Amino acid sequence: MVDITEKKSTHRTAIAQAIVKVSSQDTIEAIESGSVPKGNVFSMSRAAGFLGVKKTADLLPDCHPLPVEFCGIEFQVEDLEIQVLVTVKTFYKTGVEVEAMHGASVVALNMYDMLKPIDKGVEIYHIKLLKKTGGKSDIDNS
Amino acid sequence: MVDITEKKSTHRTAIAQAIVKVSSQDTIEAIESGSVPKGNVFSMSRAAGFLGVKKTADLLPDCHPLPVEFCGIEFQVEDLEIQVLVTVKTFYKTGVEVEAMHGASVVALNMYDMLKPIDKGVEIYHIKLLKKTGGKSDIDNS
Amino acid sequence: MVDITEKKSTHRTAIAQAIVKVSSQDTIEAIESGSVPKGNVFSMSRAAGFLGVKKTADLLPDCHPLPVEFCGIEFQVEDLEIQVLVTVKTFYKTGVEVEAMHGASVVALNMYDMLKPIDKGVEIYHIKLLKKTGGKSDIDNS
Amino acid sequence: MVDITEKKSTHRTAIAQAIVKVSSQDTIEAIESGSVPKGNVFSMSRAAGFLGVKKTADLLPDCHPLPVEFCGIEFQVEDLEIQVLVTVKTFYKTGVEVEAMHGASVVALNMYDMLKPIDKGVEIYHIKLLKKTGGKSDIDNS
Amino acid sequence: MVDITEKKSTHRTAIAQAIVKVSSQDTIEAIESGSVPKGNVFSMSRAAGFLGVKKTADLLPDCHPLPVEFCGIEFQVEDLEIQVLVTVKTFYKTGVEVEAMHGASVVALNMYDMLKPIDKGVEIYHIKLLKKTGGKSDIDNS
Amino acid sequence: MVDITEKKSTHRTAIAQAIVKVSSQDTIEAIESGSVPKGNVFSMSRAAGFLGVKKTADLLPDCHPLPVEFCGIEFQVEDLEIQVLVTVKTFYKTGVEVEAMHGASVVALNMYDMLKPIDKGVEIYHIKLLKKTGGKSDIDNS
Repeated sequence: MVDITEKKSTHRTAIAQAIVKVSSQDTIEAIESGSVPKGNVFSMSRAAGFLGVKKTADLLPDCHPLPVEFCGIEFQVEDLEIQVLVTVKTFYKTGVEVEAMHGASVVALNMYDMLKPIDKGVEIYHIKLLKKTGGKSDIDNS
Repeated sequence: MVDITEKKSTHRTAIAQAIVKVSSQDTIEAIESGSVPKGNVFSMSRAAGFLGVKKTADLLPDCHPLPVEFCGIEFQVEDLEIQVLVTVKTFYKTGVEVEAMHGASVVALNMYDMLKPIDKGVEIYHIKLLKKTGGKSDIDNS
Repeated sequence: MVDITEKKSTHRTAIAQAIVKVSSQDTIEAIESGSVPKGNVFSMSRAAGFLGVKKTADLLPDCHPLPVEFCGIEFQVEDLEIQVLVTVKTFYKTGVEVEAMHGASVVALNMYDMLKPIDKGVEIYHIKLLKKTGGKSDIDNS
Repeated sequence: MVDITEKKSTHRTAIAQAIVKVSSQDTIEAIESGSVPKGNVFSMSRAAGFLGVKKTADLLPDCHPLPVEFCGIEFQVEDLEIQVLVTVKTFYKTGVEVEAMHGASVVALNMYDMLKPIDKGVEIYHIKLLKKTGGKSDIDNS
Repeated sequence: MVDITEKKSTHRTAIAQAIVKVSSQDTIEAIESGSVPKGNVFSMSRAAGFLGVKKTADLLPDCHPLPVEFCGIEFQVEDLEIQVLVTVKTFYKTGVEVEAMHGASVVALNMYDMLKPIDKGVEIYHIKLLKKTGGKSDIDNS
Repeated sequence: MVDITEKKSTHRTAIAQAIVKVSSQDTIEAIESGSVPKGNVFSMSRAAGFLGVKKTADLLPDCHPLPVEFCGIEFQVEDLEIQVLVTVKTFYKTGVEVEAMHGASVVALNMYDMLKPIDKGVEIYHIKLLKKTGGKSDIDNS
């Protein structure tokens, strides 16, 4: 584990995405009309994602625990693809990139889990960091 | 949550993949020669993945807890892509697809986390179920 | 801890309630119209409750871990009171009463947490077991 | 989740209660004389409560993780009612009300779980915040 | 992870010990008279140990999750040594040795943690499996 | 729980050990040549140990959660004994002794778990604090 005891706290932000691709327009309509049998897909996946972001250091051995001071989760639907956008912020000695990516992956997996009974063709594409500020260098892949 | 109290236990297997793409051959060599500063990437990610598979029902609200009776994690390197293959088995009333996919995602994220200091361009592609046996229907996308 | 190794598995059901009392009709309307700033209160609390039911044995030292095979969470609004109803089922050697009560308490606390910014007067009343079947004796307090 | 990155840390205290009502004086005597078969009810419930306070952000999706810097748990017996009092303190950007209430609920549930074999009539009443200092406004319901 | 899907469930018992050595008779007296400032050492450590036994598969990557169907924790004081004895039972496809040893280690660490303010010389000796029945072969080191 | 709200953060380091004793030189060779069937013992145990250090406050009721800002785990082999050395650092209001000791115990237990199939005689000796700096007094038992 990197020794961060001597580092200074700074403002850190990271935005990560996951792409969830469903296999039919019916699935999108079921999500948007709230008729998926397992419940409200966006709200329940947001709940799972918030918890996932906070548990990142419980799952990744080398990852520093840190105070998650903001988490926001948005969904953008375009045809059969749903882009999951997870923003995480902290004021601490290390960044929140992995937390945002873990959150995006948990949201996507939860959507897969809730949609499985009505759509056997859901897949998860391209979990990646879109943006990062704070720390040694900013990144902008958005 | 689906009511599975009346279902019969059967043998269940699921194999899921995640693709981790690094940005340079040097990263592949560092992994294979064991010179990544954060440690042995495959072994530590396998440890994280085993724990991740077992914690799936802790992260996904609607997912039934189940006895994980086998988990195997393999890595196949081809050029700049590393295919993570996670196999999960149980003898229970419901399948292990989401467990295998969650394991694949945790392994991929842990590789990202360990490689970040030496490669800023690591991305995670295509987490998907490759194969599933047991339950109402088999699936083979491999 | 009670030794249950020699007990036989039977069907077990438990239904528990918690009462969440808000301080104004505006709060009820905000929940029902989906305009609470922190998000969809019923869906996110249901997600928290499902996870809470599954984590009961992680929090209560003497409680046996068991396979949660069904969990259902319903809300009934009457004036300023919201009755949270949590049903848990398993086929196992011991009952699910404490799991249902823990679920009800987590749902109620999550509602409190999400409503705090718009209503300072939320209180939680009367977490109790309403019904139980299976095991040595049935209970019906509903 | 509310964005607290720009907030200043201040001293925060919260005191929450839960009321556990048993159905007979024999139960009170068994607790006080240490003869409950499952063990020392107050000490084991205090242990569960300390862990519960620390796990609040693991269970409630929208709740910020925070450094629990003090937790105290007291019990006051009056006739058949046991008042559980949980005090939590921190020096941080957000309050500890939900942590104190979650602690009170876990203590009460653990008492229920330990007393179940000797008293089928235990109920949990009125989990509420008694007092809060620090943050935008103090509250005193005690 | 060893594949246990095809194994038959049998009765399994394991007893493990840890030795906690304190540095003065005063510490023993404080424990036995209940005057340790942090609380009742045996009861709170028993609570921690029960939870520790149940969390073994959360901490050890290769360890199968299993239904803990009995856990008992006893303490034997002899001069400055306290022997912690943890018994775990299950009816399952694999044994509970590591669960018993993990429980013993958590109990011992919790005693260390609670005694630290009154005794700087506490040490933990010899965590070992004393006895095991069920599975391919019995072991008796007691 | 000790109230640390008024304490000042200082640099804290703790080094703890555990001794794992195997029963034959073949076991040592299997570990060092990477031929243990369950995988790379040192790397996987290091992963388990990192997670264990971070989860200390989840297992020990009275232990304050704290930001683990460095964790290092080393192994020293001498004949049949493997000394596990766990170093933990933070900049906080309380020390990391128990975290280091818990990490050492988890590493040792994971080695036991991974070696069990090839060596039935593995034992864990002497988990102790070797060194501590920061806080009221330094300790050096190394």
